[in-house]
Formats: sequence, C-alpha cells, structure tokens
Amino acid sequence: MAIDRVDAYLAEHRSRFEEQLKDLLRIPSVSAQPEHDADTRRAAEFVRGDLEAMGVQAELIEFPRGHPIVFGRKLDAPGKPTLLVYGHYDVQPPEPLEPWDSPPFEPTERDGNLYARGATDDKGQMFTHLKAAEAWLKGAGELPINLKFVIEGEEEVGGENLETLMAGSPELLACDYAVVSDTSQFARGRPAITYGLKGLAYFELIVEGADRDLHSGTFGGAVQNPLNALATILASLKDADGRIAIPGFYDEVRPLEDWERKEFAALPFSEEEFRADLAVPAVFGEAGYSTLERKWARPTCDVHGIWGGYAGPGPKTVLPRLAGAKFSFRLVPDQTPKAVQARLEAHLEAACPPGVTYTLKAMQGAPAVIVEAKGNPGVEAAMRAVESGFGVRPVLIREGGSIPVVGLIKQHLGVDTLLLGWGQNDDNLHGPNEKFSIEDFHRGIKSAAHLIAELAEKV
Amino acid sequence: MAIDRVDAYLAEHRSRFEEQLKDLLRIPSVSAQPEHDADTRRAAEFVRGDLEAMGVQAELIEFPRGHPIVFGRKLDAPGKPTLLVYGHYDVQPPEPLEPWDSPPFEPTERDGNLYARGATDDKGQMFTHLKAAEAWLKGAGELPINLKFVIEGEEEVGGENLETLMAGSPELLACDYAVVSDTSQFARGRPAITYGLKGLAYFELIVEGADRDLHSGTFGGAVQNPLNALATILASLKDADGRIAIPGFYDEVRPLEDWERKEFAALPFSEEEFRADLAVPAVFGEAGYSTLERKWARPTCDVHGIWGGYAGPGPKTVLPRLAGAKFSFRLVPDQTPKAVQARLEAHLEAACPPGVTYTLKAMQGAPAVIVEAKGNPGVEAAMRAVESGFGVRPVLIREGGSIPVVGLIKQHLGVDTLLLGWGQNDDNLHGPNEKFSIEDFHRGIKSAAHLIAELAEKV
Repeated sequence: MAIDRVDAYLAEHRSRFEEQLKDLLRIPSVSAQPEHDADTRRAAEFVRGDLEAMGVQAELIEFPRGHPIVFGRKLDAPGKPTLLVYGHYDVQPPEPLEPWDSPPFEPTERDGNLYARGATDDKGQMFTHLKAAEAWLKGAGELPINLKFVIEGEEEVGGENLETLMAGSPELLACDYAVVSDTSQFARGRPAITYGLKGLAYFELIVEGADRDLHSGTFGGAVQNPLNALATILASLKDADGRIAIPGFYDEVRPLEDWERKEFAALPFSEEEFRADLAVPAVFGEAGYSTLERKWARPTCDVHGIWGGYAGPGPKTVLPRLAGAKFSFRLVPDQTPKAVQARLEAHLEAACPPGVTYTLKAMQGAPAVIVEAKGNPGVEAAMRAVESGFGVRPVLIREGGSIPVVGLIKQHLGVDTLLLGWGQNDDNLHGPNEKFSIEDFHRGIKSAAHLIAELAEKV
Repeated sequence: MAIDRVDAYLAEHRSRFEEQLKDLLRIPSVSAQPEHDADTRRAAEFVRGDLEAMGVQAELIEFPRGHPIVFGRKLDAPGKPTLLVYGHYDVQPPEPLEPWDSPPFEPTERDGNLYARGATDDKGQMFTHLKAAEAWLKGAGELPINLKFVIEGEEEVGGENLETLMAGSPELLACDYAVVSDTSQFARGRPAITYGLKGLAYFELIVEGADRDLHSGTFGGAVQNPLNALATILASLKDADGRIAIPGFYDEVRPLEDWERKEFAALPFSEEEFRADLAVPAVFGEAGYSTLERKWARPTCDVHGIWGGYAGPGPKTVLPRLAGAKFSFRLVPDQTPKAVQARLEAHLEAACPPGVTYTLKAMQGAPAVIVEAKGNPGVEAAMRAVESGFGVRPVLIREGGSIPVVGLIKQHLGVDTLLLGWGQNDDNLHGPNEKFSIEDFHRGIKSAAHLIAELAEKV
C-alpha cells in the first residue's frame, strides 16, 4: 500500500529531515526587526525551494509592504479533496538573549529536544506538513489528494498581507479542509485536536470629569472623580460569582454540551497543580464551571490597564481630569463582537455614575470559532491520523485564545480548520530556550502524512 | 490712643511698604531648586533684617539639611498674651515661564494688583504681619502684646525643619494665639476666617495575583484578575449616593451645627457657576448636603491613581501580575487617620474578592482641625480686627484642604490657629501670573495691626 511506502520513506529520512529543519532554524527570520528583512525573505525562499524540490509548484506572493507569502500547490488529484496547509516562517525576536543556554539561531540538541527560536513556533510544526507531502511525492510517487500551502511571514507582527490575499483571491486558496499546526498537545504524550477558539471584543473606555486636574482637598466630595467612577463601572461588569453582569450578555452563549463536559473532566488536569504553578491563593472563575470549562468554553471579562491621575512615588492628592481603561471580553460561540458591544453600550448608560461623561471605543474584535467535532469527517480523519502518528488517540480540546487565521479561513474560504498541535505547553514559545521535541517532530510528520491518506478516503 | 498712631503710621508708609515687598519678591527663593539655595537664604536674611530693623530680636535657626527658619521675638509686654505669627519666605517654582505676562521675579503693578511669584503665597500675606508689628513699634512706640515670628523656608517642599523645631523646642515657641495668613478671602470683598480644615488619610493598595503576567486568552476566566479585583475594591468604598460605604466610617464624624449650615447657605455661592466653571455635566457628592458643606465639612474618598497592566497604545491582552492604587480620605473632626485605617482594614477583609492577596500601606496622615468659632475670644478678636481692616465683617468658613502647620501648632504648642486670608481665589498661587491685590495688602496690614490691639485687651 502507498501509506506503507510513505512510512518507510519517513523512517529512512529522519536525520535529513532534522538537518533540514536545523538549516531553516539557522535563518533569523525575525519579522518585527527590519534589520532582519533579508533573513526573513531568505526563510521564505527556503520554504519555496523545499516545496519545489519535492515537486510542488511554489512562488512568493509579494505585497507593497511587509513580508511575502509562500504559496504552493500540487493539484494532480482530480475529484479528490483539497487540503490547505497554513503555517508561518517568521519568528519572534529572540531577546532577551542572556537567558538562552545555546544561541537562539544555532539549533542545539539536548535531552531529545531541539532548542532554537522558532523550533516549535512555527518552523518545526509547519515543516512537518512539508515533509509529509514529500514522503507522498517521493516515497509513494504521488499525492492522493490536492494540496495547497500558505506559509506567511507576518504572523508574529499581525501583518495584513494574509488577509489581503484571502479577501482578494479566495478562489486561489479554495479548499475543502484546512490544517494548522501552531498549537500544543494537551500534555506530554496527549496530542490534542483543538476544535474551539474564543473570540475577542476589546474596548477602551475614557471617563471625563472637569476640564482640568483638581486638588482633592479643594474639590473632593463636590464633584465626581473620574477614577472612582471608572472603578465603579469596571466593577459593574462582573458579579461576585464571576459572572458577567451585563444584561443579556449570556443570551448568545452556546452552552457546553454533555460530551464536552465529560471529555474535559476526563482529561488529566489538576486544579491544585494549576493553582500552585501560578502561585495564586485560589483559582477563581464563573460559579458552576471547572477551570478547563472556564478557560475554554465560557466568556470572560478582563481589565488590561487603567490610567489617569498619579501613579508615581509618594502621595499626590490629584483629582484627575480623566481616567481610562482597556478591557476585553473573550467570546464563545455564538457571541459576536458587535452584539457584545451593543449590550455593553446599553449597560454603560445605566452603570456610569452621575457627574462624568464617557467615551467607548471598540479596538479589536473577532468572533469565536468552533468546529463541529462530533460527526465531522475532517475531525474524524484527523483523530485517526494523529493516533497513527503518536500511537495514542488525541483528546479534543478548546482554547481560550484566538488564532486569527482560523477566523479568516472560515470567513473567506468557508472552511473549518483542523488545529493539530505537536508542541508542548512548556516549549517556551516567545521566550528564551524555545524548544521542540525531536520525537514529536517525527510523530507530527507521520500524523500529517496519515491525514493525507485519511482525507483521500473521504470522497 | 495708640491704635490711632498705628493707623497714622500705616497711612504714612504705604508706598515704602509696597517697595519693600517688591524687594522681597525680587528674590527668587525657590526652595525646591538647589540652584536657588543662595537666593532662598537671601530671602531669609531679608526677613530677619526687617525684623531687626523694627526692633524685634531675630535670628536664623539652622538645620543639617534644608533651609533655615527665621525666628523673631519681642517679649516686652509681661502679663499680656503672646501671639505667634507663622509664614513662609520660600516660593513655588515659576515654571512654566512662557504664560507669565511679566517676569515672575520682577514685581509688576497692573490693575491694582502686584504680579510676581510669591505675591500672595506667602511673601505678601506674611509681610502684612511684619508691617503691623513695625507700625506698633515705630508708630506707637511699643507692642501691647508679646510677639513671636516663625517664618520658614520649606513650606513649598514639605520640609521637616519646622516640625523638628516645634517638637524639639516647644517652650521657645510657646504662645497663647497663633495667626497664619496663607489662605484666601471667600470672595472679592468678603474676607474670611477659616476655622476648620480637613485632615487626610492617604493609602496605597497593591493587589497581587499570579507570580507573573498572564495571557488573558489562556488564563482569563480561570484566575482572578488583579485589576478587576482592584476596581471592585475601590468601587466598594462608596455607594451610589456618594456616601463612604466602609462600616462605621461616619461614627466619628462631627455633624454640621445648625449655625454652620445657616452661615454657609447665606454665602454668595452659585452651584451652577461652580459647575459651569469646572465644565462638569453635574455636581456630585454625598446626598443631603450642599456643595459647600461637602467641600468643607464632610469626609471624602478619592482615587488618585491606578497602575498595573498595559496603558500604552493599541490593544494588549495582558492579565497583570499585580495592580495598585493610591487613594485618600479627607477627614473631618473628630476622625483620625488611625481610626480610619482600622475601619478600612476591616472593610478590605470583606471587600477583597477571592483569588488575590493585597497589601495596604498608609502613606500620609493628618487629623482634621477645627477651632471653636463661637465664643472663642481669639476668633472674636480676629473678627473685629478684620472688620477694622476691610470695613466689612468677615465670614466664617472651613476648607477642604489640609494646612500641616496648623496641626503641628495644635499638637506641639497646644494652641488653635487663626487663619486670616487676605488672598483671592483667582490669585494663581502655584501658577503663572500669581498676584496680590495691593489694596488687600494694606487692608491685611491694618487687620493684623488691629488684631494686636484686640488681643491686648483680652487679658
């Protein structure tokens, strides 16, 4: 069978795959740092070259600003599904350098891990899909499905080129399935498929009082203090049980399904270890839900910053002219930033104390994403593929964060994304000593190769 | 009569008094700026020299750090009361210089006012008491009471030399009455005697969560956010009616007396003008009290600053490790900072949400000060004296601010202070174009001279 030839190819080329990944990791493609613009382009060329070498037609799509997107396609399986692979070749800045035990752009093996900036995020994980395709093309002689690759260079800087491409050329990227490996396993030896991500509605609120700063001795008690008023407003957003107190806020919240609560409860997760690791006196969240349910499937409201008045050393008795706050809601299906904003605006009308005015500004918004996990042929194919690669059935999890590309793929291409994470939670992505398990690298390649086989049988 | 000779002397020497004040105002005695240390000492020498020239024994009391205190005494009236005059010869920095219409240290007459840094705060007001003493000594030949002068050079920098002197040498400063002219009239042509000042209890509160900043996507909803918790705590300090919601907080608050409410209500004060001047949509304060009552005689609670998290441009989804706030209570008789702190601590135990810890730090404290205005011979003498000087009976007012020296005099010398303000509310003290009415300067001198006569009859 073809899959056996693929598996044999993978076994045969393990050390070359590792050496190739090291070559890619040696390129300091730090998209945020203009002095690395040439390196960033070099990483794009590396990816394009590797695709071409295995027989995938590949090009760099250029934009007026920012970094190019590597676009590859191999569409020789008419009547078969098309899988879009998304990844990114850019990396976070390596600074601070001092804590690194080996140079960030000199990949180093220790304890079965490869240490380098980008090892897991996302060069190592992205590369698994390239090597899986190569194994099919070189080992089995052909791909049993159609493949497209979109490997961008602006993920770490939130660049706009990807959205420009998706919105402008959806037909170029048209596909039946999308896969992204840019997340983590649930725990060591527990690979995960992430089927839900939270959305975001981020706001800035400015509360204004008098037209100048006032002395709290002369004016205190006679006019509303914008900082006191802001604290009152922010406090009104949640109740003592950790529930968001904006009327109607939960109306669009899709309840957890029974199978989800069972699946989450069965995961090896210790609330006490979680608490101790963070060094908090107690975990705290919405009453009636477990920590994993709160993290993954319940909306949240967090204040990110408050300003106005005096925060320097010593006492200063100022009654500030204005006070401001940044805060956001993490959204779950089927909430939308727009509906949340409307409910928040109505709430503020009632919650703002007298004597001040306020201005609300929406800063960022993204809807939640959820893939129907049960009975979804793509998810079922991925479950079997990951089991083949890791030797253990993956767990279905959700995440509290947002991965913008998943929303873009859904919006512009109309397709759900399979989030297959090969990383570990302690891989230090964005920090010093980023690493990736070499064994998980190979398991990821095998899983990706088997995903191609599984999807080939879907039609 | 002696007082007639005093009045005649005052009339005769008007222009010399003005010229002398201008000489004093030309000295840039900016206590906060080390490059003006020599100038600050020059102002002290000026005051000492003027006292000696009129026959008052005067010296500079030196300290290891900071600026000297001018101490003068003329104790030739055995059996008569002793009056302590407090004032300060240092001034605020003149910056920003650009808005000044004439140089801050080149006193300039315009529209009946003398414009210069220190004109009203406090050189001009302090100098009235020197010229009053001179009029008695030179015009009437002797002082009918005993006089002491304490003119310091660290009022604008909150220096410690004054307290060092008061605590260390209370017998040197022993007196029957103290007078300070460092406040304002209630309104133009409405001189005031300030008989009450608020105290202060200033705190810093730190709320701590996890031992590191967290990502609000990954951890939001599962742990308490210190900024949300801080907002909840700060909001709990007051209720929707503007009352402080700390249990027992009002137990020590001395209610306004009927005569006070009547006196305040009779003052020419427009709430609408007050609101419009500040450009607030509405005045706001404790239900059941007028604006003047809130400003002068009811305790307050104001937040002065909040920090923690991210306040820069754009969105950042941080769940901060800690959050801090500065806030203070203005106290009225008979509240003490210590009792307020104890009640606050008990309140925080209940008000702090779960999942975080907090630390409260007391930063500054001063009790409220009130002089028994009714039936107080010193106040009655001052009322008559100010009426002689201004031709109109002064009003009795309180103030929302604190004047630390008044508390120090009460604490160390056991004496109430007569706060006789010759300034105007729009004199721009601490700002550009500080001024002092030349006519009020002379009215102040006459009031100060008549205060000496009134007190002489008190024994």
